[in-house]
Amino acid sequence: MRFMRFQQDGRTGVAVDAGDGWRARFLDEEGVPFDVSVIAASDEATRTAWIDRLQGGFALDADRVTCLPPAAHPGKIICLGLNYRDHAREIELPSPSYPTLFARFASSLVGHGQPLVRPRVSSKFDYEGELVLMLGRGGRHIAREDALDHVFAYGVFNDASVRDVQFRTSQWTMGKNFDGTGAFGPWLVTADELPPGATGLMLETRLNGEVMQRASTSDMVFGVAQTIAIISEGMTLAAGDLIVMGTPSGVGSGRKPPVYMKPGDVCEVSIERIATLRNTVVQES
Amino acid sequence: MRFMRFQQDGRTGVAVDAGDGWRARFLDEEGVPFDVSVIAASDEATRTAWIDRLQGGFALDADRVTCLPPAAHPGKIICLGLNYRDHAREIELPSPSYPTLFARFASSLVGHGQPLVRPRVSSKFDYEGELVLMLGRGGRHIAREDALDHVFAYGVFNDASVRDVQFRTSQWTMGKNFDGTGAFGPWLVTADELPPGATGLMLETRLNGEVMQRASTSDMVFGVAQTIAIISEGMTLAAGDLIVMGTPSGVGSGRKPPVYMKPGDVCEVSIERIATLRNTVVQES
Repeated sequence: MRFMRFQQDGRTGVAVDAGDGWRARFLDEEGVPFDVSVIAASDEATRTAWIDRLQGGFALDADRVTCLPPAAHPGKIICLGLNYRDHAREIELPSPSYPTLFARFASSLVGHGQPLVRPRVSSKFDYEGELVLMLGRGGRHIAREDALDHVFAYGVFNDASVRDVQFRTSQWTMGKNFDGTGAFGPWLVTADELPPGATGLMLETRLNGEVMQRASTSDMVFGVAQTIAIISEGMTLAAGDLIVMGTPSGVGSGRKPPVYMKPGDVCEVSIERIATLRNTVVQES
Repeated sequence: MRFMRFQQDGRTGVAVDAGDGWRARFLDEEGVPFDVSVIAASDEATRTAWIDRLQGGFALDADRVTCLPPAAHPGKIICLGLNYRDHAREIELPSPSYPTLFARFASSLVGHGQPLVRPRVSSKFDYEGELVLMLGRGGRHIAREDALDHVFAYGVFNDASVRDVQFRTSQWTMGKNFDGTGAFGPWLVTADELPPGATGLMLETRLNGEVMQRASTSDMVFGVAQTIAIISEGMTLAAGDLIVMGTPSGVGSGRKPPVYMKPGDVCEVSIERIATLRNTVVQES
């Protein structure tokens, strides 16, 4: 099953595709969940009721609406750095023995088809194609063997990075949180439709059609289950929280010479069996 | 004016002190803001109405209730590292020419009087007394000279850090986000009652009564106005967002020999004219 959020004629809605096309309702109708995370966080019966309600809605042409990030206000957006060995190598950092985590704020998110914004202060605006997951059940001290039961759905993320700012201090937070840099969408695919932990899926990033990154999600250093287990040793995770699983090699800053995104560029991230996320780069006005 | 959130007999409430003692209402009463951030984010007229409504409530004995963090679900908690020159020196890092930012998630917060939790995985649980501010107005590209108009109120924060995890990778996020490590409270004091940018206030951290940190907020490398201006070059700030301004020297990990917090310890952070935040350390069960 797939879920998305969208905007059409100034109204925001949520849509579901249970295999026979998108069906949607607007938030201003009664009994419509305001966010995919609400569906994720529901118990089985409530979730079924939400889905039934959406299924009774209108047929949506997903190509003709403005896609919004599938989660509007996630409680946490936890991102992994250096989670593919070949990527750690290309940026000359050691492959980690513990997950390297940083945070995004929701203010940085944009949907599929919305512009990725190269900020005024930067000439080093880089792409990072990534797998993202939304939790359907939270918890603390989640055992690795139970962790995949906590995942609601998977999606595609472009963790676009303002490299000159990212490496200005030891902490990457500022360079990872510019407005219009966290592309997320177009939809989420529920975990039951994918291999356990979304392993073995080909991830590919293309810049203006040229393949820049290509790797299997099986090449991640810390897989989905292990990541959830380790993070929850420290923090209580909640339904709706997002975990962005890191990028493989081929980023622009690791190339010789470096390749950065400039206004007019089109960046696409595809993950097999999930989606293609496409964004055009614009310059901050 | 001061604002706090509290719990009494299982009910959550918000209280105001306009100079003649605390007056409070519970959230389950009509017309009560669910969070101090709601008051912060209101226009002048609505804010006055919220305050009038609270002022008509019952007299609260703040010493006899459970204090909650003044903000329940801030959109962002942005923290500064290395923002006092003497602290950067003691942990052997250079004083920054740009703010070193990291994020906390709301899941790490505890109120005044609630336990600071030393996690199972750590023997290096450290205190960091800090000034925190809540924004009352957001924006992007906020000019330094206008930035203080965006501050709603100031408070006291103990940015307790799981040092062994914090320095396990290059990014501090995990070591700064364990449950029960971000002590915040007991209340917020509105900006109009303090010097501009909360400068010149003595900050003191005491562990079991012994003074461990003592510095003036004027010793910050990046002051409040400059910090808001720089962060908003990259991200849209929103009313209710929190910025935690960094800690002076004297942290436990910088001492020879190091001093870490252990179960039963009482850690207090006082900032002149704002409040004293007091928490007892417990071991994670």
